[in-house]
Amino acid sequence: MSEKKIRVGIVGASGYSGEELLRLLLRHPYAELTCITSRQNAGKPVGNVFPRYMECPLQFIAPDADAIASLCDYVFLALPHGLATEFAIPLLQKGLKVLDISADFRIRDPEIYAKYYKETHPAPELLKEAVYGLPEVYRKQIAQASLIACPGCYPTSILLPGTALLRAGLVTAQRIEAISLSGVSGAGRKVADAYIFPECNESVRPYGIVGHRHLPEIEQELAVAAGLPSVVINFIPHLIPVNRGIHTCLMLEAKEGCNADTALECLHAAYDAEPFVRVLPKGALADTKHVTMTNMCEIGVAYDERTNRLIVSSAIDNLTKGAAGQAVQDMNILAGFEETAGLL
Amino acid sequence: MSEKKIRVGIVGASGYSGEELLRLLLRHPYAELTCITSRQNAGKPVGNVFPRYMECPLQFIAPDADAIASLCDYVFLALPHGLATEFAIPLLQKGLKVLDISADFRIRDPEIYAKYYKETHPAPELLKEAVYGLPEVYRKQIAQASLIACPGCYPTSILLPGTALLRAGLVTAQRIEAISLSGVSGAGRKVADAYIFPECNESVRPYGIVGHRHLPEIEQELAVAAGLPSVVINFIPHLIPVNRGIHTCLMLEAKEGCNADTALECLHAAYDAEPFVRVLPKGALADTKHVTMTNMCEIGVAYDERTNRLIVSSAIDNLTKGAAGQAVQDMNILAGFEETAGLL
Amino acid sequence: MSEKKIRVGIVGASGYSGEELLRLLLRHPYAELTCITSRQNAGKPVGNVFPRYMECPLQFIAPDADAIASLCDYVFLALPHGLATEFAIPLLQKGLKVLDISADFRIRDPEIYAKYYKETHPAPELLKEAVYGLPEVYRKQIAQASLIACPGCYPTSILLPGTALLRAGLVTAQRIEAISLSGVSGAGRKVADAYIFPECNESVRPYGIVGHRHLPEIEQELAVAAGLPSVVINFIPHLIPVNRGIHTCLMLEAKEGCNADTALECLHAAYDAEPFVRVLPKGALADTKHVTMTNMCEIGVAYDERTNRLIVSSAIDNLTKGAAGQAVQDMNILAGFEETAGLL
Amino acid sequence: MSEKKIRVGIVGASGYSGEELLRLLLRHPYAELTCITSRQNAGKPVGNVFPRYMECPLQFIAPDADAIASLCDYVFLALPHGLATEFAIPLLQKGLKVLDISADFRIRDPEIYAKYYKETHPAPELLKEAVYGLPEVYRKQIAQASLIACPGCYPTSILLPGTALLRAGLVTAQRIEAISLSGVSGAGRKVADAYIFPECNESVRPYGIVGHRHLPEIEQELAVAAGLPSVVINFIPHLIPVNRGIHTCLMLEAKEGCNADTALECLHAAYDAEPFVRVLPKGALADTKHVTMTNMCEIGVAYDERTNRLIVSSAIDNLTKGAAGQAVQDMNILAGFEETAGLL
Repeated sequence: MSEKKIRVGIVGASGYSGEELLRLLLRHPYAELTCITSRQNAGKPVGNVFPRYMECPLQFIAPDADAIASLCDYVFLALPHGLATEFAIPLLQKGLKVLDISADFRIRDPEIYAKYYKETHPAPELLKEAVYGLPEVYRKQIAQASLIACPGCYPTSILLPGTALLRAGLVTAQRIEAISLSGVSGAGRKVADAYIFPECNESVRPYGIVGHRHLPEIEQELAVAAGLPSVVINFIPHLIPVNRGIHTCLMLEAKEGCNADTALECLHAAYDAEPFVRVLPKGALADTKHVTMTNMCEIGVAYDERTNRLIVSSAIDNLTKGAAGQAVQDMNILAGFEETAGLL
Repeated sequence: MSEKKIRVGIVGASGYSGEELLRLLLRHPYAELTCITSRQNAGKPVGNVFPRYMECPLQFIAPDADAIASLCDYVFLALPHGLATEFAIPLLQKGLKVLDISADFRIRDPEIYAKYYKETHPAPELLKEAVYGLPEVYRKQIAQASLIACPGCYPTSILLPGTALLRAGLVTAQRIEAISLSGVSGAGRKVADAYIFPECNESVRPYGIVGHRHLPEIEQELAVAAGLPSVVINFIPHLIPVNRGIHTCLMLEAKEGCNADTALECLHAAYDAEPFVRVLPKGALADTKHVTMTNMCEIGVAYDERTNRLIVSSAIDNLTKGAAGQAVQDMNILAGFEETAGLL
Repeated sequence: MSEKKIRVGIVGASGYSGEELLRLLLRHPYAELTCITSRQNAGKPVGNVFPRYMECPLQFIAPDADAIASLCDYVFLALPHGLATEFAIPLLQKGLKVLDISADFRIRDPEIYAKYYKETHPAPELLKEAVYGLPEVYRKQIAQASLIACPGCYPTSILLPGTALLRAGLVTAQRIEAISLSGVSGAGRKVADAYIFPECNESVRPYGIVGHRHLPEIEQELAVAAGLPSVVINFIPHLIPVNRGIHTCLMLEAKEGCNADTALECLHAAYDAEPFVRVLPKGALADTKHVTMTNMCEIGVAYDERTNRLIVSSAIDNLTKGAAGQAVQDMNILAGFEETAGLL
Repeated sequence: MSEKKIRVGIVGASGYSGEELLRLLLRHPYAELTCITSRQNAGKPVGNVFPRYMECPLQFIAPDADAIASLCDYVFLALPHGLATEFAIPLLQKGLKVLDISADFRIRDPEIYAKYYKETHPAPELLKEAVYGLPEVYRKQIAQASLIACPGCYPTSILLPGTALLRAGLVTAQRIEAISLSGVSGAGRKVADAYIFPECNESVRPYGIVGHRHLPEIEQELAVAAGLPSVVINFIPHLIPVNRGIHTCLMLEAKEGCNADTALECLHAAYDAEPFVRVLPKGALADTKHVTMTNMCEIGVAYDERTNRLIVSSAIDNLTKGAAGQAVQDMNILAGFEETAGLL
């Protein structure tokens, strides 16, 4: 099997998404991790930075497109938005397959990108080329792509239930509300007063409740699923004191005939063949602790006939299905491996 | 001052609400804690059960109406629902003022009680007599009452912002959604598999999302505020891994003229004179860590013009303003003390 | 490869050690999990109890020696002490290989067992037959055994550094102190007031500091390593609010020539060929977060010349290297697989 | 009473010790908080930085000795070591009483200070003048002092049990070991990678196990208690994922006649009259959750006759008895108030 191994790299391997990519790729049966970059850790063995991987002989190198291109064929960008494009451009030109975990290529409309990210998109022509890397929706396109825009963590937890229900016409695209709770690793390895332990522990707080950067990505994909030019929702993220995990409560307006039974049927039809979506039995709701350290999205539903609202509970691990795991799933599709390789 | 002290008792003092009452009443300037009951701890000094209070000479006694009535004039019932009524009836007859922290007297309509609590109310005649102990709404009635139905923790976090905004006519009573996150002490000192540390830590999960027992109490009071016979809402509670604190995100349909500024004006007008409600500056949202161990409710708002939703963020300590602290506030009103006595 | 698979079972699969065995054995390349028992969950699919394994078709059966023996060749006992022996006896007679995670067969001297476990050992003749399942010390004996007494979690964290240093003669066997901090899963899935979330979170407490049940096991094996009839130590366990992980600080009296450098040399010599022991660079200390969800033991050392104490810091995951992972490692040895199968 | 109020200030009021001083001084019956300084928050109302105190009209000012001296008579320095001396010198000259929470004046020997703090002491003459602010040991000297060196958090948890037992001659001053576990607020409001939530949560790690900066202070005071020129101990601090609280396990060599009973007698004799030391009943050990948010030190003991070690378990809140609360206790002594004022 070893002659089939592809050479893969991680640009920005010292953040939390990068570290999760490390975890997944070091044990991947068909990929060989040949390159990890980090500006501040260049020259250090990976075990110096992550003692968990002390047995691994890899060393961080400084991020440099030529060096990266000489070392690998598939590259994951685990960089802040903006910076990702700077690497994507030359690496695509050199023929690498690029899996971007940042937000740089998720928004198709550069004006919307500019509105939410407060800067002009540096490579708007690439927005057309990029494929949104949600395999359950775009598997065929992913297989043909060179540039994958891996979905955000919150969007993944919302879109997996949301797109199936909208496509099936069970719910309307009006009055959608998504209330999400995220572990602190969702903020990345961000060293700021708001994220030190005593400020997060024994605390819960919403943030970015109007205009969060994941909002346009969610609305874009819900609109596609609904077959509408646009969809407008409320998205309310919260920070909670856990390391990993996102729970989303998605509240939807039920159409005639929609209830817990029909919604579960719809979700089973959409996802029973999917390796990374679990539809819970009637009455059960999602719990992040069932999915942490896995690439699984767990979905439960309830229907409130008094308000005619379908209430969907979904959970993922923000670093796995919400970032690195989904990116590896995309890589598996791109490379023609079984989709679950290295992810079970 | 000591001749003015009233004699107070706690029935069911070994649960979390009872323990919080202990904390507050032991330092109350005008109340003397003369009686604490506990079935399983009867005969033990309080310090054996709560080492934090080892310096306190009080001893638990077995719960008995005659004994309680001989020892105190004001009594707090920190008992499971159903059991509270069994004590309330004789204690009221003996002339005590009863502050009930259970749900037994919160619902005015015995049929609704029966629907949500799955049993016939044992003393429906008392439902008319009881006053709902939310001081910011029912202060005058509390002052005259003999039986106070102290509000639930979730309802307090929802009703403080909700009633002010509905009364002012800034929002409609349709399409109200309350998404609440509660610390584990909200379940009481419940010894069950679902509440042991490894099952709660690193986990977040919704529960009771259709038909939670706090729902009818919330809807009843929102209807009063809206001047309507009834109101129907969605209420989505979640369990999160913190000890204390509830955060609620209340989503409301804005009427003409309602936005963040007018909503804040309304809340300031309603609450600036209140000692236990804090309206945050524009742009700020509530955080449970600002209110734990206090009797304060903190409220922030945002307005999403795209969806015309007013989004209210509120936080309380579930054991203080959500239970014991509010009950002491009620006692202060009943007894004619300054309302903040023992609570600052 | 599938014809090489061995059939394995877990007796008592619904506790935390049992659940961890499930996690490891379901992905083991050469073992097929054919039998899981649970008294209270008999008849339920595993996914009903552990939603994380909903995709697994296995069902719990009631624990019965005949049924178990008909379904598997290797069996893990994840039962309370005492009960384990009741199953070990018939299963050994039926020719199964038994890997016991309880304490029943760890103590060689039945009198010491009786002293610490407050009951006469039910099968003292089996104590001679059992092999203490610490592969780094007893690999050869494990390979020949039928009954493996898998070490306790605390003992594993103490013995891995302790035996190497004693054997090498770098430290004395006098004045040994082991101070250990354990996550709450170490108590098993015990539903008791002391283990509910609000009682553990924001709390740290020692317990069992004189006469903990793991003490005789630790002293027995340290004596073997020191070549002495007996060794007496202080062992101070603490409970801390994490789910998984044990950290031990082992304090040892340095002999002439012992310091951080020579101690590290000794540990490298002992463990560099071991797949599941990681010796940290000079100056680095162990951290449980480097080893959770792995079968690794991480060891760092410091030497205080002022007191002539060697201070060893070790960390394991109490459920993996401290229980289920080590048991699987033992099974790999028994069955002749590579020792790391299913554990990387 | 208000004419008796003293004017107090906090220099460095935006760290965790400063915030705890705020909490205590804002409710102190005989002190009026007239001055809070913060370099980065100068000009902001206290409620902007700590929403918990939004109702408080105080505003941060830039730290300036003249301004401070004009506003208050007692001043708390909650500054990093080194910087504290810069303020202490002029404030003492202007006649203020100075309560320093930093380490600057705790070590009597400037050479030892230089060794552990890696710099020459900036005002060695003040070291003679300063009184070590442990009221249970130095109450009389505190009452006469102008400069109080408030003890560190770890030292407080060790010295309260340790000095009483050494003074009574129940234990030797040889082979003392102190193993301490601290919540993350013990590191101060330090914004560094090691302290962000995901790096601390689900982690436990020792640090500074040879030569921690609190070590010389502990040894100095144990030597005084033992009546010896010097004492050498091992001190092993650990970081655990709680916000507040320190637990120390102090291991001592018992002298003839020392056991759990005599040790408890000794501690009762030393501390029964003390308002802030609680000696637990025989068999009970300390738990941080019994003391958080209080100024109490809780002490339990056990004796292991096999090793002749007395094992002492003590717990404090690192920010209260370990810092700000003890400083307020010292202020009460200095000012002639009852010692518990504002601390119960």
